[in-house]
Amino acid sequence: MHHFTERSERIPVNVIRELFKLMADPDIISLGGGNPAKESFPLEEVRQITDYLLCVHGADILQYGVTPGYLPLRQAYLEHLARPKGVQAEVANTIIFTGSTQGISLTLELFCNEGDTVLVENPTFLGTLNVMYKMGLRVVPVETDAQGICIDDLEEKVRRERPRLLYTIPTFQNPTGRTIPAERRQRIAELAAKYDFIVLEDDPYGDVRLAGEPVPPIKSFDTAGNVVMMNSFSKIISPGLRVGVGVAEADIAAKLEALKQGADTHTALLPQAICAEFLDRGLLPAHLQRIAAIYRERLDAMLAAMAKHFPADCRYTVPEGGLFLWVELAGDIDATRLLERAVAEEKVAFVPGAPFCVHAEDGRSCMRLNFSNSGPKQITTAIERLGRLLQSETK
Amino acid sequence: MHHFTERSERIPVNVIRELFKLMADPDIISLGGGNPAKESFPLEEVRQITDYLLCVHGADILQYGVTPGYLPLRQAYLEHLARPKGVQAEVANTIIFTGSTQGISLTLELFCNEGDTVLVENPTFLGTLNVMYKMGLRVVPVETDAQGICIDDLEEKVRRERPRLLYTIPTFQNPTGRTIPAERRQRIAELAAKYDFIVLEDDPYGDVRLAGEPVPPIKSFDTAGNVVMMNSFSKIISPGLRVGVGVAEADIAAKLEALKQGADTHTALLPQAICAEFLDRGLLPAHLQRIAAIYRERLDAMLAAMAKHFPADCRYTVPEGGLFLWVELAGDIDATRLLERAVAEEKVAFVPGAPFCVHAEDGRSCMRLNFSNSGPKQITTAIERLGRLLQSETK
Repeated sequence: MHHFTERSERIPVNVIRELFKLMADPDIISLGGGNPAKESFPLEEVRQITDYLLCVHGADILQYGVTPGYLPLRQAYLEHLARPKGVQAEVANTIIFTGSTQGISLTLELFCNEGDTVLVENPTFLGTLNVMYKMGLRVVPVETDAQGICIDDLEEKVRRERPRLLYTIPTFQNPTGRTIPAERRQRIAELAAKYDFIVLEDDPYGDVRLAGEPVPPIKSFDTAGNVVMMNSFSKIISPGLRVGVGVAEADIAAKLEALKQGADTHTALLPQAICAEFLDRGLLPAHLQRIAAIYRERLDAMLAAMAKHFPADCRYTVPEGGLFLWVELAGDIDATRLLERAVAEEKVAFVPGAPFCVHAEDGRSCMRLNFSNSGPKQITTAIERLGRLLQSETK
Repeated sequence: MHHFTERSERIPVNVIRELFKLMADPDIISLGGGNPAKESFPLEEVRQITDYLLCVHGADILQYGVTPGYLPLRQAYLEHLARPKGVQAEVANTIIFTGSTQGISLTLELFCNEGDTVLVENPTFLGTLNVMYKMGLRVVPVETDAQGICIDDLEEKVRRERPRLLYTIPTFQNPTGRTIPAERRQRIAELAAKYDFIVLEDDPYGDVRLAGEPVPPIKSFDTAGNVVMMNSFSKIISPGLRVGVGVAEADIAAKLEALKQGADTHTALLPQAICAEFLDRGLLPAHLQRIAAIYRERLDAMLAAMAKHFPADCRYTVPEGGLFLWVELAGDIDATRLLERAVAEEKVAFVPGAPFCVHAEDGRSCMRLNFSNSGPKQITTAIERLGRLLQSETK
């Protein structure tokens, strides 16, 4: 038996990663997980770009790179993604991460000591919760409604709890699919300035919009330099490439660079160069439309099937983008127990709500459904099966 | 002004990464840094393999992967690299990291709390020292001689300091180029079992052998399961790919997986698949010979020029592989000050010894020279210039 540090013993089992094992059974339709549609990957473009890059810049790409990231990617990101959204930033404000997971983890490491208080949306992404638990942070959930974070509750908790940081996924939130409107975003930035806390704005889904108009990032309202924004190429090009980007004040970016140096020296260059070239060739806008068309069809299939097969007293979100929607089951159904039945009896998987909530009971009767990773027919079948199960539970 | 955590303020400036900036001046010959020769990269093989992988497994490679790593790489690593060296391990004992930097960092996080004592070779790799400093560890150096760690001093310090962990680079050590012989390796494994501490065996250079016979890893002598071995593809295929591998008891590997999940979810798949395919095609042995031929010529050029141009009372190591050798200057020369003169007057860079030592004065009159990253003529010129400078200092 080995003796491990307390922090490493505090990490809960990651329900979603465990679900990967279920998905190995080809008969199970998984609405768990958060994989993008593999049909949406720009495979031919990536193949051509990669061959070009290795032919023209091969030796440089195979060599060590610099810690804050491949310069053409930082520039392309600013030009094609950050500045068009109203984020005023320069190269010194950017840092490339090995997925935004790394950026989130290092930002928490930069600002939070064990025992510090941080605020999160209730519910929120369980991967980030797990990092916070590992670090021994005091995690306080903020109330949310159909428009995301409730500003009054946020201000009350900020005054009472004096948090170091608020973690938020403002657009097509994981797990709810909800989007915070512009006015609330501005208020969040103002509160961060007034009460001197950091806003960690995690935005991996914002460009996967299926309907409605884009909303400016919280970072675009940041006058005090308190917002650290994380973007990712996982949902818009490929998650297997593991490329994310952070935008922050230059002093924060420099400190994140120092932390990243010890974390993995730098992010793999070939994936960074692929993303840069993809942006610089102007391929992203058409590709995002292609993704949106695929996801639109899948989300519509899910919503249509839910209207038809779910009990009438189920409530669920109708997101304008992203990969997920959130279901609140009627009555006192335990979604974790329901998952066991769903897998065993109906061969359908989803993620139960509890692990997304600091207080597990808040998510007890909820489930997160993913609509990106199965075709419309599979989704229809899965929802029909889930509906049958739910009808049998509520009888 | 932002308030950062104490740990993030404890990271010293990384001298080597700062040296990258010097290298931007094309007139400066840098014997600093630790880049492999770009002429040694298997560019054409990587290009062909990458195209093949994207054609045949494209969608899977662009999708999310599992946290412990791409299965074909873990299998290929065991078959082609670990088991031939006498390391008895199964897939459950392996975990792929985003460079061994990540593996080292997470292993320290797994075993060491702030204030814990760890042992290191004196001198040792400064990148790892910086991670230890960040974590607030008590770092105690162990004496070394021409055969690396002195076992008597190790045992004395183990008894006195009760360390959690010993960090060692047993083969072609960074910065000295020294190799610990088999008998001492066995003693290290025995002491780890007897006194219950972890040995973190960092072996990125072992396959870059230019002369002599391979020495079995410390891990091959590990009967108590206390050795965690880190390997890397950075020096044998490409550092830009950022792929490393850890080998450990299954309970340790599982905990490292949990930590890695929050650190970056998984290592980029395309780089992992490239390394796997490179191994499975049987390309490594011939490629290692090609690297060795290039480095042999460069090391020989360096040694010949040092014999000719360095003051007779300089002492230096004559490594049988790796990328570095270590010079102990005669008299009381401050190598950090010397570096300033070397860059300004002679346009030559190296890494001064101080940052490799817990007690900076131990490395005050030392320097690390890299022989992998410049051609033989450049090396000869650089050593001639350095020799001139040293002669002027000792006059």
